[in-house]
This record gives sequence, structure tokens and C-alpha cells, in this order.
Amino acid sequence: MADRIPRNKDNDNSETMASQRRDFIQQQTGSTARHLGHYSIDAESTQGNIEHFTGVAQVPLGLAGPLRVNGEHAQGDFYVPMATTEGTLVASYNRGMRLLRDAGGITVSVVDDAMQRAPVFVFKDARQARDFGVWVEQNIAAIREVAESTTSSGKLLRIDQYAAACLRYLRFNFSTGDAAGQNMVGRATFAACEWIMQQYQGIERYMLSGSMDTDKKHSQLNTLHSRGKRVIAEAVIPDHLLREQMGVSAELLFRSRQISNTGSFMAGAMNNGSHSANGITALFIATGQDVANVAESSAAVVYVTLTPEGDYYYSITLPSLIVATHGGGTGLPTQQECLQMLGCSGSGKVNKLAEIIGATVLCGELSLGAAVIAGDWVTSHEQYGRNR
Amino acid sequence: MADRIPRNKDNDNSETMASQRRDFIQQQTGSTARHLGHYSIDAESTQGNIEHFTGVAQVPLGLAGPLRVNGEHAQGDFYVPMATTEGTLVASYNRGMRLLRDAGGITVSVVDDAMQRAPVFVFKDARQARDFGVWVEQNIAAIREVAESTTSSGKLLRIDQYAAACLRYLRFNFSTGDAAGQNMVGRATFAACEWIMQQYQGIERYMLSGSMDTDKKHSQLNTLHSRGKRVIAEAVIPDHLLREQMGVSAELLFRSRQISNTGSFMAGAMNNGSHSANGITALFIATGQDVANVAESSAAVVYVTLTPEGDYYYSITLPSLIVATHGGGTGLPTQQECLQMLGCSGSGKVNKLAEIIGATVLCGELSLGAAVIAGDWVTSHEQYGRNR
Amino acid sequence: MADRIPRNKDNDNSETMASQRRDFIQQQTGSTARHLGHYSIDAESTQGNIEHFTGVAQVPLGLAGPLRVNGEHAQGDFYVPMATTEGTLVASYNRGMRLLRDAGGITVSVVDDAMQRAPVFVFKDARQARDFGVWVEQNIAAIREVAESTTSSGKLLRIDQYAAACLRYLRFNFSTGDAAGQNMVGRATFAACEWIMQQYQGIERYMLSGSMDTDKKHSQLNTLHSRGKRVIAEAVIPDHLLREQMGVSAELLFRSRQISNTGSFMAGAMNNGSHSANGITALFIATGQDVANVAESSAAVVYVTLTPEGDYYYSITLPSLIVATHGGGTGLPTQQECLQMLGCSGSGKVNKLAEIIGATVLCGELSLGAAVIAGDWVTSHEQYGRNR
Amino acid sequence: MADRIPRNKDNDNSETMASQRRDFIQQQTGSTARHLGHYSIDAESTQGNIEHFTGVAQVPLGLAGPLRVNGEHAQGDFYVPMATTEGTLVASYNRGMRLLRDAGGITVSVVDDAMQRAPVFVFKDARQARDFGVWVEQNIAAIREVAESTTSSGKLLRIDQYAAACLRYLRFNFSTGDAAGQNMVGRATFAACEWIMQQYQGIERYMLSGSMDTDKKHSQLNTLHSRGKRVIAEAVIPDHLLREQMGVSAELLFRSRQISNTGSFMAGAMNNGSHSANGITALFIATGQDVANVAESSAAVVYVTLTPEGDYYYSITLPSLIVATHGGGTGLPTQQECLQMLGCSGSGKVNKLAEIIGATVLCGELSLGAAVIAGDWVTSHEQYGRNR
Repeated sequence: MADRIPRNKDNDNSETMASQRRDFIQQQTGSTARHLGHYSIDAESTQGNIEHFTGVAQVPLGLAGPLRVNGEHAQGDFYVPMATTEGTLVASYNRGMRLLRDAGGITVSVVDDAMQRAPVFVFKDARQARDFGVWVEQNIAAIREVAESTTSSGKLLRIDQYAAACLRYLRFNFSTGDAAGQNMVGRATFAACEWIMQQYQGIERYMLSGSMDTDKKHSQLNTLHSRGKRVIAEAVIPDHLLREQMGVSAELLFRSRQISNTGSFMAGAMNNGSHSANGITALFIATGQDVANVAESSAAVVYVTLTPEGDYYYSITLPSLIVATHGGGTGLPTQQECLQMLGCSGSGKVNKLAEIIGATVLCGELSLGAAVIAGDWVTSHEQYGRNR
Repeated sequence: MADRIPRNKDNDNSETMASQRRDFIQQQTGSTARHLGHYSIDAESTQGNIEHFTGVAQVPLGLAGPLRVNGEHAQGDFYVPMATTEGTLVASYNRGMRLLRDAGGITVSVVDDAMQRAPVFVFKDARQARDFGVWVEQNIAAIREVAESTTSSGKLLRIDQYAAACLRYLRFNFSTGDAAGQNMVGRATFAACEWIMQQYQGIERYMLSGSMDTDKKHSQLNTLHSRGKRVIAEAVIPDHLLREQMGVSAELLFRSRQISNTGSFMAGAMNNGSHSANGITALFIATGQDVANVAESSAAVVYVTLTPEGDYYYSITLPSLIVATHGGGTGLPTQQECLQMLGCSGSGKVNKLAEIIGATVLCGELSLGAAVIAGDWVTSHEQYGRNR
Repeated sequence: MADRIPRNKDNDNSETMASQRRDFIQQQTGSTARHLGHYSIDAESTQGNIEHFTGVAQVPLGLAGPLRVNGEHAQGDFYVPMATTEGTLVASYNRGMRLLRDAGGITVSVVDDAMQRAPVFVFKDARQARDFGVWVEQNIAAIREVAESTTSSGKLLRIDQYAAACLRYLRFNFSTGDAAGQNMVGRATFAACEWIMQQYQGIERYMLSGSMDTDKKHSQLNTLHSRGKRVIAEAVIPDHLLREQMGVSAELLFRSRQISNTGSFMAGAMNNGSHSANGITALFIATGQDVANVAESSAAVVYVTLTPEGDYYYSITLPSLIVATHGGGTGLPTQQECLQMLGCSGSGKVNKLAEIIGATVLCGELSLGAAVIAGDWVTSHEQYGRNR
Repeated sequence: MADRIPRNKDNDNSETMASQRRDFIQQQTGSTARHLGHYSIDAESTQGNIEHFTGVAQVPLGLAGPLRVNGEHAQGDFYVPMATTEGTLVASYNRGMRLLRDAGGITVSVVDDAMQRAPVFVFKDARQARDFGVWVEQNIAAIREVAESTTSSGKLLRIDQYAAACLRYLRFNFSTGDAAGQNMVGRATFAACEWIMQQYQGIERYMLSGSMDTDKKHSQLNTLHSRGKRVIAEAVIPDHLLREQMGVSAELLFRSRQISNTGSFMAGAMNNGSHSANGITALFIATGQDVANVAESSAAVVYVTLTPEGDYYYSITLPSLIVATHGGGTGLPTQQECLQMLGCSGSGKVNKLAEIIGATVLCGELSLGAAVIAGDWVTSHEQYGRNR
């Protein structure tokens, strides 16, 4: 039987315990845990961020930019911290940022914003479930009051309803201020559910989540109705810039996109773009986001056109980008430095951060997309030419 | 116009340049970048992992376990390093590990393994595209030879074909040894494509990716046909353990799962489980995986039964878990320590790592699933009881 | 060059022209068209239902029932006309109807009802599209007035909005009385759009459909938000009846459903049930529905439980059942006879028809489901026994 | 308690019984069933197509065409019988046929062909399921022999495998000659499964269908891997023809398609085209197909380009078109006449029929697509102009 991990019930997030656990690792597994122990975080301060604190993962961080953003909250040039271990990622985003900077920057907008918890109520039959749905609509004001009583910043925006069998799924949508808000909306929804249970006769039981939230996983529902921020980044890139900097024409990029859109549709993909997950993940790690939300946040809808002038309008819609400037890992030392670097530290900056991430993603799309095409969109003719 | 980020064209991954960039950040943005500069990584060694190396993100790391794994490659008890900033995550997984340990451990198996690159070939019409497909099948041996000539460890397993319009999408499937292999299969497929272009008349053009790979994004195709490792973790948890440790019965968990499965199906979710992304992400950051692959790796299919004895069979199938023990960030200091901790350093250990991740995910599913139900599956009767 | 089909510009739906076209077929193709010409329809009366009227397809029609329905609109026993050419279909549904009759009938409810047309508006950028969305919400009353001015029975229930790129998709939801309403909502939405174009500055262009309706095709959107009627049919079938009439236990059916649900989820299916399309199609042909709507109407969500007593609760949710008792083919001779047979002729009967169809579908699910399991769910033990 | 439907156990498909049932309807429901009794079908001949034969649904049938097809099996001009009750449907397809005829006809190809039955085998755990999968691959020749022994025309092409939990889903793919083949492949797969049960130790149980077939419902799996015929119809339509006949330019159609593709992707639609279900259903009813297969057959992938000359390449891929010229309703009187009309009566004509349906669908796509755009793609400028 393996030994238990050392733990101090009273005060576990301490340097003493972290050190003890690193020793434990060495004894048990032979791994030195030396680098894990090299950090500038105050062990005590990790309380609330991690249990059994033992050290830190050191994730290399590079700088990309300047990124020119024409947002409503983010305006101007930004240096973007990206934490990743994948070579060429920073370089590729950087290349895209140069292109978009020369093209005048990225227009980016937050067009929707809500965090959800979706309880489900079980009834005797579908008819009772439907009647309950009507009651919920009629009592939305009272439900809101109960839900909002549990939080200072969360506001209940609306409750969507979905019906199947004898079940009624309610999807509570909240605005959550600077926080991502998963915990906040969980508490608020729980309070609302308990109140509903007291008020309404005939509910057999309920669950706080019936999996229509959909938390930590992508769904078509999220693509349709957003989760976190719905961010749209757009730009018109002059054909000549694409040719000069990327070695491809707008027209070739456009034609290749028709083909990749068709591939995405056939594959049943959650994202018809190139690699939004790369930029989002690197920024999430750097700025202390809940990185597991990449599962949802990496969904994307790309829409492009060729302008009458032959330039390339490229847009990417991120329907469920979950970001925070408060709570979670945002207050940790390196993470806070990265938020400061972006001017996203302090209150009221979460949409600014969302816009910066959206703009970054767009740069990566064009950079990779162009690279693939420049190298590989090979006509027979070019092929023969190349081999001479 | 913003200043350009300092860069040394000859030798950019150096302590000098990193330091210079941290100074640059301070001048430009006011952020001190002090903590970012606190690391034990050798700046030179980050070459190939990052560009414009500036420092590190310090991500808190906790220990969970021991995790009892009954794998084919991983056998015995493991201490699992999890890098996250989300409070309760490590505790929750740890709680699940205890439950599963008492239940005899997790049976986990890698049942499929392949990395893909999916070029698309454009023809005059569908008929020509179809004929090309036949030719590819007939010439698979020659194509394999060309593809494998570019790599020492990659093996071309098969080429799947998908047809639409005048297009033929070929999905090359490779085994890639200890590496995740995205770059390896890109190179090998490119070589194969160029050879095909020389051999076959009538191809109008091709693209190295037609978006049916599907890289850095989830797709139904990945769920069906795997990407990376297809890992299945299973366990039978005695009802009495669930009651004692989790405060819920197997039967209640089972019933609640019917409802959440229905919610997942209606939502069009990529995952009918609870939160596999949490465990995967924390282990990916800790062990130097390409964290952006959480987009694909977080997909899951949960299947459960109640045994005749009333115990709970729970399984989770991860159809596209992308892991490596070689390449990417796996060689970096803290990341290598974490791999060593798991006995996954050195060659031939990648399936062991995949099994450990799969087993970890299962523990998290049960822990969160039980917590949700224990707290919230409220019958009217219990409700009234509670309020007395 | 082939000859043109005979046509009379002034009066084409006549017996003369039909006969002329049948002769034309014989001359051109050698097919006698004799049976096609055997009908009791008045050629003139087909005006508005078909162009180039030439004859009729004679589709065999069988009777199933009595079907016991516990609806809100349909109550009691019904004889169900099913038009099909697939042997065993009527017998299978009939078998299910007997089972459900003995089980006390089917509880069926219409829980939602709307027909959609989803125009899309194009803007300069996402921000303008978002602002337009706000304006639409603020002007819903005026938009409703314009839309409803085009129809005596259509009512604009709500406008859903979906955002991507510089586009705003508006999904108009109408109640449409006894008609399916596709044309009605098309006209009403067109009027609304034209009015919007006059009122709102900055719209670059619009299309009456941006493919988010989604008409004549299934979508996850329809599953979530309904199209036509959302009908839920439910029943609790005693275990002993399943054993006696179907040769399977409730428990075996329940276990097999876990497995088929998993298969449906992996396959990305629009329906986790057995064959709702069969019953729906046979009733659609018989009663003069727009049979092409089977594309949407065949979507389904099945949810089942085992009751504490060991009986089988089976429910099927049809999220987009499109039915009419007025318009389309409902007034044609055999179709009208079938509607009369069901007591669904005349005004105010469309929900009754929807309930009968939902109840019929449930019977077919249990009949086929049980047949598959009774024959094929073979344990090793049974297998050996059988071969002795 | 309602009366039972009259039935003759020995010989139920007779005119006597049909007449008796029509009288029964009148007595029970008041509906005359007079038109239902007007038919030229021989009641005895409906044996095998329907139970409780009572009469026929008379579905109006119109002619469209000539349709110019450049297939491998269908070549030349065809008059297309369409059975529908939806006004304008025949006219709309006819309009598209004229356009495509003037454009030189439709190139159409059958690029894949298979009918499936997908049993699932249950094991103790995932590892045993995986090992079974290997055994199946190794024993494919023997399995094929057993399966094919049950049918004269069915050939086992391959067995696809899908893994989840302790389950192994096998998807048997057969070619089925002139028949749609659902029953044929059911029997053959059943024989194979029974043989497997005898040969292989350790299977806990199996089901003949684990819902990955996916029969009578659309799935992403069908889109990827076909069910029935995979048919691709293509054409290049000169811009001037579009302008002259449809009142829209190729460029406008192309631009609008970008937008509707985006809508389809967001909606999670099974079809990014316009209304393939309309043409397919009308031809299915006319030619005696299993109309319920519209659920699967209506899936489609549309891919378009603008040629360098400014013309419009339009293609539609029908991934799961299920058609037959033998069996089912194909031998019934009006249905057989329609097959003869198309030159698709007799053996070896099923691909010809598939091509004709594919070509018809393409005509409908362009006709409706153009109509929508011509009427509704309204710029502000045009709008003002119109109102003067």
C-alpha cells in the first residue's frame, strides 16, 4: 500500500508542507522535484488556488506584438504574453500581428456575455414539466431576487428552457462582472432551485446540473447561445500585404477556405478555423485563466469574404470565450504581471482582456492559414517548375 | 507607433535577451515582470519550445494520489502532479482517487493510437476524385515508403478517404512512437503528397490540410476514429463505498446519469461526462504536453451500468487524448520532473502516461458527479425534512 | 433534343392535360402510365398542390389500432391510417398499439409550437450587427404589427437572434393555426424585413433565409428550439406485459437502451430512438402532410427509466414535428378521408393530429425495440442452450 | 373498448378484407373511405408491402423535365415523375431542369455504395473488447462466408469498428445489388453474429443493432461514411444563363452561399443546401422507395466555387441516398410505371436511378436558391429604388 501524501489539516498551503511534499516525491518516486521547488510564489498565497501545493510548473513565456486592437475596451498596441512549450507558436502569432498591424489593426467586439448553470427538474410527465416552465416564466422576478441575493456582482439575465420527456432543463444565464463566474452562478442557481422547491408543488426531484450548462465541454448549444463572452474579431487585409508578407494572394486564401469549410462541415467540427486553441491556451496560462475552459473556448466560427477590391475580409467568432480578470489564478504573481502588461489588472477590464484574446486569435488564424497555403497549395504546374 | 520587441537574430533564446525583454515590458507597460523572471530554466534550453523567451508562467502544482492503476503499461500506485489555479480541483480528484483505490483501482486501456494529417486533392469533377481514391488504395505501399522515409519513428498505418464534390480528402494515420507527432506526420504527409503530385495526372491542386485532421479542435470524426490515443478507463465501485465516502447510492448516481446523458444529447455536447478537461489540463500543464490539445482531448463518452449486485460500473472513453513523453515541452525542467514522478520519463512510456491520465480522469468524474448529486438531488420529501 | 412536356398555360390542371401528358409519357418512354391514370381525384382540384398534374401515385394504405391516446386534444381510441410500401411496418406498429393499449394508453402532450423563417442581415462589422440586434428587440412590437398584417392566423411569438461575423441572423417564430405555415411565415417575415430595411440605416443587404430556419433539414437548433410542434409521448409499460406480449423483460430493454444511447451519441445521430421516421412518414403520406418534412420531423430524443416497481417508463420527444390539418395536401380526397377517420378534419384539430402521431411513434418504438432484443440479445448461456 | 380491426388470418391481403375494413372505418369513424377504395392495385399483390390493406393514398404526381443527365449509368434526357402535394415544387424543379439543360446537363456520379447493420458486442472490459476487434479483423474471411451464405446478391465489403467502454460496435457494410438491402444485411449480419458467438469466448451478450447503423435517422457517421449510395451531382452554370433565366448573377449566388453555409454550421445542420428533401421525397413516393429513408437521404454537403470566368460551379453530395429498383414498393403498379418512365425497371438499374435523383436534386437547389436571392437579396439602394 502506497503512503499517503503529507498533509497538514490546519494549514496545508505553507512552505513547510510544500517542501515536505517535494521530499516525499523524491523518496517515493526518485524524482528530485528541485525545479518544481523553484518559485517566487508565496506558498500561503496559493490558498484557494490549489490543494497539496507542492511547487510550480514553469511554463516558458514569450512575447508577441505589438498587437493593434480596435476594440471598444482595448484600443491601441499591446504586447501579448504567451505561455507555451510549442515551438513556432509565438513566432507564428507574431507574424500575424505584424500583418494585421500593417492592415490597420483588428476590430474586435464583445457581442454577448453570460455564464450559465443549468439545473433540471423531474416531473411525473411532460405536461407537468411544461406547466412548470410557464410558472418559471411568470415568477422570473422572484427567482431573480433569490438568485441575486447570493452574490454582489452576479445578475440573472434570463432563464432558457429546454424540454424532453418528463424533464425541464432550465439554463440560468448570469452576468458575472470581472469573474468567470462558474462558482458564483452555481451558488445563485442553487439558491433559486431551493426556493423553487419550496414554492412549487409536484417536482419529484432536481439536479443542479442536467448537463446543459455545458461546463468544461463544447456543445452546439454553446455555439448558438454563447458561454462566457461571445467575441468577434474582424479585419480587412489588403491583397498586396498578403502577397508581400505571406506569399499568398487573398484570392488563393479565399478559395482554400471554401475547401476547409467543407472539410469542417463533413467532420462535424466545433471550429471551422485553423487553431484558435493555440492562442487562447497560451494567453489563458499566462493570465491565470481556468485553462480547462479551452474545451469550450476553442470553438469558433470563421466567415470570410473577398471584397470587391480583391482584399480579404476575415472574421472569427468565438462563441464561448471564458475569461476573468478577478478570481481564479488571476491574482497569482506571474499571472498578475501578465494582466498588468495588458492593462487588464483591476476592476472593469474583463472585456478588454476578451478583446485582446480575440484579436490575438485572428492573427494566428491568418498566419497559419497563409503558411499552409503558401507552402502547399501546389498546382501541377508549380510542381513541375519546382522540381527542375 | 509602438516599439518592436527586442530580438537578437542570431541567438534569441538567451538570458540576456530574456532580461532585455523583461526590461522592455517594464518600460512599455509598467508591469515589473519580476516574477516572470524567477525561474530555474536555462534560457538557452528553451530553443525550440518558445520564441521571444521572456520568462515563465508559474503555475501552482499540487499532488493527488496515490492513484491505483490497473493498466497494461501503468500498474500500481502513482502520485499525480496537477498544475492548476482552480481551487478544489486537486482535492476533488484526490477524493475520487481514494474512492477508486478502495474499489480496487482503475482498469485502463489504450485501444487505438494514431496521429493524422489530412490533405485534400482537387479535381475537375467527382468522378476523377473517386478514381484517384482507387489509385491511392492501390499505391498505398509506395505512398507509405515515401512518407516513412521522412521519419525514424513514424509509421503510416492507413489512409482514410472522404469524398465531397470534386474533392478527395485523405486522412493519413500514423503511429508516432513517444511523440505526439503532429509535426512528424505533417512532414511525412507532405512528402507523400509531393510524390503523389508527381505520379498522378489530373490533380488540379492540393492542400496539406483540408480541415479533416481535425487538429486543435474537436470533431465528431475524432470521436469516431480517434486522434492520438483512444483511452478507456473503467471501474466497478461498490455501492457501500459510494454511500460511505460520497454520501450517495450507486442507484442514485445511475439515475442521475440518465438525465445528464439526455441533456448532453440535446445540447449537442462533445462529452457526456462531467469535467474531464479539468484533470487532463492539469496533467498536460504539469507534464509538458501541448495544452491547446485540450480542445480535442477533452472529448469523452461516458457509459455506465448498475451491476446485478447494485454496484456502479463507470467507464469513460477518451477518443482523442494527445500525449507525448518525447518532444514538445516534455524535456523542460519541471515537466521532466513530473514525468519522472510518474515513471514516464525515457522511451517507451507514452502509453503508460496515457493510462495514468485516463485513470485520473475517471476519479474526477466520480468525485464531481457524486458531489453534485449528494448535494442537489433533492426529493420533495428530503426538502421538507431539511427545512424543519 | 427531347420534347417539352405538354402544358396549357391557361388551365393546366385539367383532365385533358393530364391525359395528354400520360400519352406523352407513353410515346416518349414506353411506360404505359395506365395505373397512374387511375384515380378519383378531380384534376382541377389539384390546382395549388401540383404542377404538370399527370396522375397519382397509389400508395398502399393499411390500418393500425385501435390506438389509445391520453392527450389533451386526442382522447380515446383511434384507427390509424398508414400509407407505406414496407412490409411488416403496419404489423409492427399494430403490435405496439396493442401493448400500449393494454398498458393504459399513451400520454402525449404538445409542449411547444412555432414555425420559423430566419432572415440574415449583413453589416459593415460585428458591432453594427450587435447594435441592430438591440434595435430589433426594442422594436419588436412594430415588427410584429407589420408581420402579422400579412396573415389572418399567424402570430409572431418571438424573434431569436444569432450572431456571427458582421451578420445577424434573426429567427422569427410564429404560431400558424391549423396550417404548417411555411409559406405564411415566409410572407410575414418578408414584410417585416422590408419594413426593417426602410426603418434601419446601415444594413448592407439581407437574405430572407440565412439557413438557420432550418427548413427541410434537421439541425441541432431544431432539437433545442423546436420547429412545428414539440410533441412528447410517454407511457409506463408493466414488466409483465412486456414479458407476455414481447418476450422481453423491462430490465433487458432498459439495459439495451443504455448501449444504443451510447451508439447514437458516438455516431452523432439526430435521433437516439429506433425508427420514428417510419410511423411519421406513413401518417404523413396518408394525411396529406408535406412528406419532405420527415427530414426534420424524424428527429427524436428518447429517455427511459426503470420504475421502482420494475416497469418501463418510455418517452419519446419529437422536437420538430411539422403537421397541418389545413392547406397543403390535407384537402385532397384520400387525405381528407384519413383526417376524418382520425377526427382531425375541420378547424382546431392540428394539435389532436400531432398527439396521434406522437402516440403512434411511441408504439412503433417499443414494438421494434422489443423485437430486436427478444431475438438478438443473446447471452453465451442462451446461445449454448439453443444449439443443443 | 374499441372494436378490433377486421382481419383474416389466412388471407388478409384480399379485396374482400380491404372492402370490409373500409366499411369498418365508416361504421367506426364516419369517414366514407370511398376514395381510399379507388385504386387499380390488385389487393392480393400488396402482400409483403402492407398489412391490413385497406386502400390507397392517392398522391398527385406531376412531370418535370426533360432533365439532362451526364451520368455513368444515366445518360441523356429524362422525364421525372414527382409525387407531392406541395404546390410550386414541380414547377420549381422544372425551372431548375431547364437552366441545367441549357447549361449542358448535370454530371453525376455514384462514388460509394454500401448498406449497413451494426451489431454491438458486450465484454467484461475494454481490453477484451479490443482483443475481440483484432480477432474480427483476422477472421474477416470466415465471417464473410457465413454472412454471404444467407443472400444471393449481398456481398460483405468490410466491417468498421467503433470502441467505447466494454463495448465493441461492428458496422457491417454490404453491397446489395438492386435492393436497398436493409433486410438482406440484417439477415446476413445476424448469421455472422450467431457464428461469432459460437466461435469466440468471452462475449457477454450482443445486440443486432447498437444504433450505429444508423437506420432511419441521420448521423454525422452517415455523412462521413455513406449509407446506401453516395451520389455527387455537379454542374457549371454560365453566369449569363443565371442572369437571363434566374435574374441573379453567379457572383451574388456565390456570396449568399457563404452566408448560408455559416448559418448551417452554427445551427448544426445535417445539410447546408436548400431543400434536397423535396426532390428526394417526391421521387421516392413516385418510384416506390422506402420514403422514411428521407430521414437519412436528405443529408447533403454543398460545395460551390466561382470559376475564373465568373461562372458558378455548384455541387451537392448526397452521402446517404437509399434507393432500390427491386423489392419494397418498386414492383407496385404506379411505382413500376414511374421506374419504366425513367428506364430504371429491370435489373442493374439502381445506380441509374440514383444518378437521376442526384441530378434532380441539383436542379431544385439552384432553382430555389436563385429564387430566394433574386427576391430578397436587397441592398438599401435597390430598396429605395423599388419603392419609388
